[in-house]
Amino acid sequence: MQTPCLLIQPEIVRANIAQMALKAKRSNVLLRPHFKTHQSAEVAQWFRHEGIEAIAVSSLPMAEYFASHGWNDITVALPVNRLDFITIEALARRINLNIVVEDTETIALLESQLTTPVGVYIKIDTGYRRTGIDAEDFDALMPVMNALQETRQLIFIGLLTHAGHTYKATSPAAILEIKEQSYRQLMAIKTFLYHKFPLMQLSYGDTPSCALMEGFAGMDEVRPGNFVFFDLTQVHLGVCTPEQIAIALVAPVLALHPQRSEAVVHAGKIHLSGDSLPLPCGMLHYGMVIPLTPTGWDVHTILGHVTQVSQELGVVALTPRGKELVQTGTLVAILPVHSCLMAHLAKAYVCADGSFISKMNA
Amino acid sequence: MQTPCLLIQPEIVRANIAQMALKAKRSNVLLRPHFKTHQSAEVAQWFRHEGIEAIAVSSLPMAEYFASHGWNDITVALPVNRLDFITIEALARRINLNIVVEDTETIALLESQLTTPVGVYIKIDTGYRRTGIDAEDFDALMPVMNALQETRQLIFIGLLTHAGHTYKATSPAAILEIKEQSYRQLMAIKTFLYHKFPLMQLSYGDTPSCALMEGFAGMDEVRPGNFVFFDLTQVHLGVCTPEQIAIALVAPVLALHPQRSEAVVHAGKIHLSGDSLPLPCGMLHYGMVIPLTPTGWDVHTILGHVTQVSQELGVVALTPRGKELVQTGTLVAILPVHSCLMAHLAKAYVCADGSFISKMNA
Repeated sequence: MQTPCLLIQPEIVRANIAQMALKAKRSNVLLRPHFKTHQSAEVAQWFRHEGIEAIAVSSLPMAEYFASHGWNDITVALPVNRLDFITIEALARRINLNIVVEDTETIALLESQLTTPVGVYIKIDTGYRRTGIDAEDFDALMPVMNALQETRQLIFIGLLTHAGHTYKATSPAAILEIKEQSYRQLMAIKTFLYHKFPLMQLSYGDTPSCALMEGFAGMDEVRPGNFVFFDLTQVHLGVCTPEQIAIALVAPVLALHPQRSEAVVHAGKIHLSGDSLPLPCGMLHYGMVIPLTPTGWDVHTILGHVTQVSQELGVVALTPRGKELVQTGTLVAILPVHSCLMAHLAKAYVCADGSFISKMNA
Repeated sequence: MQTPCLLIQPEIVRANIAQMALKAKRSNVLLRPHFKTHQSAEVAQWFRHEGIEAIAVSSLPMAEYFASHGWNDITVALPVNRLDFITIEALARRINLNIVVEDTETIALLESQLTTPVGVYIKIDTGYRRTGIDAEDFDALMPVMNALQETRQLIFIGLLTHAGHTYKATSPAAILEIKEQSYRQLMAIKTFLYHKFPLMQLSYGDTPSCALMEGFAGMDEVRPGNFVFFDLTQVHLGVCTPEQIAIALVAPVLALHPQRSEAVVHAGKIHLSGDSLPLPCGMLHYGMVIPLTPTGWDVHTILGHVTQVSQELGVVALTPRGKELVQTGTLVAILPVHSCLMAHLAKAYVCADGSFISKMNA
């Protein structure tokens, strides 16, 4: 086993998928999982076993990858790049492709260039303030909706939002409050325009609220992504338990500096990403270091936290338990602060039995 | 041209290489550039044209990549993972391989397993406090040096340091002060032990001080890496000019929000990395947005700064000039905060004439 490498526990992944799929089924809401988190055709099959057929992705190359692995209902869930019309046309000829827009110029340009129907969502901003039309700005929304009534190739499907501001919430209650507000805003638009757009669909994303909610009634589909692996950010938000985290970086300890209670691991920003979380003392960390076990890892024994990262290396502040157990040459597991980025950076997943699971960036 | 992509200006790269090579030649010090910054066999050829034959890398797979492209004098410049002895043995049979150690146990273990000679540097810590033996802790250093006198396969070459704390310096003078101290410490060890280790080599790394110094006299070799591309961090440190930055991300503007003077670009943490720098107002940014030109980019027209990044998207705070010039669908150039990470994340470099330059992670 060449290290650093990304260890995956398939049974945890499958349980995470099954739990979300069950909630969607109970609510009679479509689960369209965001596949940017795992980027793997093999992991995708585990979703298929739960009846999932529609997915979201975050780029056209990712849409092409999953289309070539038999997925034929794909939403590219970020505002479309109007310069990409050739790729969009080619994909839309093969599969049921949905894109996302937020302005009339892009609609006019794509309509003039596409010769194949493409599904279109309008991006709505319910408070994240990244992309989308403000959910309460009808003056901005109406021209975009009206433009989509006159198009032949762009087929209006509905409204799509990503409530990314749940990641800044400080409690599960605050996350659910953001979700409530987003739902209210989307449903208000749908109700207000029902006479004109009776088939309008509502699509809602983000793992924190979807993981906390009992059901999704009110939306037509939900698009969580991170829940497939979860991570320490979700634990920090109160959304999952450490036992639900399904991937960890396996890294060797390259050096030990007991006088300052530190170890150096071969795990840097190119493996863990630079995303961080605060420790109780206020210090930032980039991953939690725990022991490997024959079948995975032991979340109950904290050996330390990665408190500094450069390109290739991480410095671990060791706990008293870590000082006892960690030696030069020890292989440790590092739970991710942000599993989407850590998974993106890897070329494959490794299972405890030594088998590999391939991914898009191989 | 599929975007986002990494645009490179070969003539700037060549000028950066030539300048550093000239200083090394004048000082009669070996320039062993760190190739982790570009990770490209084609860029490597431009170093060859300046007479470079010895290199440093940051992982064994990177050593294998460059060995397979004709480089046969390679130092893997981070503490060796003792579990990697099979790969080390195989590489050492093909090329002149140097590794880095900092403890006697690793030396004993590798000596018992290797059947081919491997060059060895001892990692010295001159103040960065990441890896290495404290330069003033002779009690820790002597056992490691002595252990290397009794080995047959591990051939002691000298001492190696990375003065990474120059990146935290607040002025060029402070960078040169750190360099002075590191030089003094390494040269003191060499002088003190000259009777016992007359052939001891001193190897010193880091771009900030190597870029500022007139010459390198006192060391046997220097290992800067970032200077090949430079970046906004080096500009911030006072080490290079914006005109010396040789790579920029080309990204499309996906959305415009004039009411909050923002644009959204397809450029997130998976393209720019999460590394940041402070703006004069104290806000952090992840890249400077400037216009593309037919031959590259225009560093003198600042359109804005990327002030928020998620996995795929960046939010640009537009300048007044940016509000005039940037439209949805515009392709912009983004100068990197940290070029090593931005280059690592890309699969290839694109030149202004449309040609590609391949890299290791393709």
